[in-house]
Amino acid sequence: MTQSKSVTAGLVVIGDEILSGRTQDANIAYLAKWLNEEGVVLSEVRIVGDKHSAIIEAVNALRERCDYCFTTGGIGPTHDDITVDAIAGAFAVDVIYNDEALQMLAAYYGPQELTEARKRMARVPDGGGLIRNPKSGAPGIRKDNVFMLAGIPGIMRGMLEGLRGELAGAEPLLSAAVTVFAAESEMAEGLAAIQDAHPEVSIGSYPFFRQGKIGAELVVRSTEADKLQPVLAAIRRAAEAISAEWVDGEARA
Amino acid sequence: MTQSKSVTAGLVVIGDEILSGRTQDANIAYLAKWLNEEGVVLSEVRIVGDKHSAIIEAVNALRERCDYCFTTGGIGPTHDDITVDAIAGAFAVDVIYNDEALQMLAAYYGPQELTEARKRMARVPDGGGLIRNPKSGAPGIRKDNVFMLAGIPGIMRGMLEGLRGELAGAEPLLSAAVTVFAAESEMAEGLAAIQDAHPEVSIGSYPFFRQGKIGAELVVRSTEADKLQPVLAAIRRAAEAISAEWVDGEARA
Repeated sequence: MTQSKSVTAGLVVIGDEILSGRTQDANIAYLAKWLNEEGVVLSEVRIVGDKHSAIIEAVNALRERCDYCFTTGGIGPTHDDITVDAIAGAFAVDVIYNDEALQMLAAYYGPQELTEARKRMARVPDGGGLIRNPKSGAPGIRKDNVFMLAGIPGIMRGMLEGLRGELAGAEPLLSAAVTVFAAESEMAEGLAAIQDAHPEVSIGSYPFFRQGKIGAELVVRSTEADKLQPVLAAIRRAAEAISAEWVDGEARA
Repeated sequence: MTQSKSVTAGLVVIGDEILSGRTQDANIAYLAKWLNEEGVVLSEVRIVGDKHSAIIEAVNALRERCDYCFTTGGIGPTHDDITVDAIAGAFAVDVIYNDEALQMLAAYYGPQELTEARKRMARVPDGGGLIRNPKSGAPGIRKDNVFMLAGIPGIMRGMLEGLRGELAGAEPLLSAAVTVFAAESEMAEGLAAIQDAHPEVSIGSYPFFRQGKIGAELVVRSTEADKLQPVLAAIRRAAEAISAEWVDGEARA
C-alpha cells in the first residue's frame, strides 16, 4: 500500500495505573478512530509510567518521527501529575503559568477556591497554548506538535471534539471486510497470493473463536474506495474455492 | 519507593488492528496483573504495526532495558504474521523449523492437513524454545528473554498459565486504596505532604466522575505489607481534615 501521502501521529499514554493493570485503557482505540477520521494514521503507541525520564524519552522519540504526538494522562492537580514538567523537559523550556488557563480555572472553581493545587493545572511548557475542555475546568495543552490531553476518557473525548479539523490530515484510510468461517490457516495461501497481486491495498487477517465458531475477519484497507471492491471479490472467490462460508462485513460477537 | 529489587518486563503489542482502533486491546491489563503476581513490574509497553523495522526496534529496546520482553500478536499462519521473522532479525539469527512444534501441529491438524501455511506456525528464531498452547495447536515461542505470545486473548492467557513460576521475579507489589468523595484538587496538597513523608511507598491519585459523584481513588503501593497501613491512615485523616467522605478500598462503578 502506498504510504507516501500518509500523515502520522504517535501517542504516549502516561500512567502507572495502566502499567499496573489497575485501569483498562479506553483511550487508544478511541483516539485511533478519531485520528483516522481526520486523515491521520496512528503509527505507534508507548505506555510509560509517571516518571520524568520515561516520559521525556517517549515524547521526544514520537514527536520527532511522527507529524503529531498526543499524550494522555498526568495533567491533573496531584503530585503524580508530572506530564507538563516532563514535556517542558523534553523541549528544554521552562514551565510557566498561562493567564488564560488561570482565568478558566477561576471561572470554574470560583476565585476563592483557586488553591495552589488547582493553579497547577494552569501550568504549561513555555510557548504552549490551550486545548479547550468542555467538561471540566482544566484545559489540555498544545506545545508545537505535541497535544497533552486528559487521561479520563470523557474529558479526553471532549478535548478531541474541540480539535476537529485542526490537524493537517491526508486522505482517511478506508476499509472493508469479509468474514470467512474457516481457520485462517486454510485461507493463508490464497490470501498471500491476493496480497501479492494487489500491493495497492493492505490486507489484514484477524482470526476469532466465538460462540463455537472459528473464522477470520479479512480486512482490506486503502485510501481509495475503488481499490477495495476487486480485492474483496478475490477474497470471496478464495473462500468459495475452499468451500468456506463467508459474509460481507465484520461478524463481531 | 525503593526500586532496587524490582524485576521488570516490557511488552510489544504487534498489530495494525490495534493501531487502527479496529480492535480494543484486552491483553495489556491482563499481562500486567499476571506479571505482578509473578513479582515482575511491567515498566513499558509499545504498540507497533505489522512492520519489520518497527517490531525490531521496539523489541531490541525493551529486551535490552528490561529483564523480560513479551510480545503479543503476529504468530499465526497468514502473510501479515511477521513476528517470528522480525524477532529473528532483532537477534540477527535465522528462522528455522522447530521439530517439536511440527509434531504438535501434526497432532492438532492431522498429518494430512499440515499445509505449508500451517507449518509457518512451527517457525522459530534459531535457538528459540516453545511455550505450550493448551487451547489450539500452535505454540508460543521463547528466545532468550523474549516471550512471543498469541494475540487472541484466550490463547494468550492459556500460554501465560504454562509460564507460571518460570520467571525469576522479585516480591510482588502490594496495593491498598482509600476512595475519597471530593475533587482530587482538594486533596492534592495533603497528598503531596504524605508522599513526601513516606518515600517508602508510592501514592497514586485516580480521579473519577461516576454516577453523579466526583472523587478519587488513592492507591498506595509497596512490596512490604506493613508499610501500607500507616499511609492509608494518614490519607483518611487528610480526607477528614477537608470534611470529605471516604471509604476503604476502591469504589468502582
